[in-house]
Amino acid sequence: MKARVTVTLKTGVLDPQGKAIAHALGSLGIDGVDGVRQGKYIEVELAETDPERAKATLERICKELLANPVIENYRYELEGA
Amino acid sequence: MKARVTVTLKTGVLDPQGKAIAHALGSLGIDGVDGVRQGKYIEVELAETDPERAKATLERICKELLANPVIENYRYELEGA
Repeated sequence: MKARVTVTLKTGVLDPQGKAIAHALGSLGIDGVDGVRQGKYIEVELAETDPERAKATLERICKELLANPVIENYRYELEGA
Repeated sequence: MKARVTVTLKTGVLDPQGKAIAHALGSLGIDGVDGVRQGKYIEVELAETDPERAKATLERICKELLANPVIENYRYELEGA
């Protein structure tokens, strides 16, 4: 089954990528943007078909590889779960 | 209003980052992963409160800065729209 993982910086953590995007938007003449935060998006195709076990695998994947729990939050959704 | 933008590589476009993640998962002993694709996730805080005009701004942001339409798809959702 397919999972969509989103990893975002925790509130208060400096986000230079987001700041760069906001600055670039200003340079392009696009106004009305109050803030930009950049995160990561990862699609994972799991062989597991049981939603509970798929969630357990995803928790491991997020904690051990995709997110740094000190500065990042993660969330995921399972397709068809 | 807040918008969540997701930019993903089009099908068929090589994704070395995704491949690297899949490889690292194997090294960590996490099996049952058939494929990984990495994309970008961006949260944009817009001053605009009208959903239609916010969408128009978002289209510009995606097309002119966030996504490369040759190799990437984008989608967005507006919070409370």
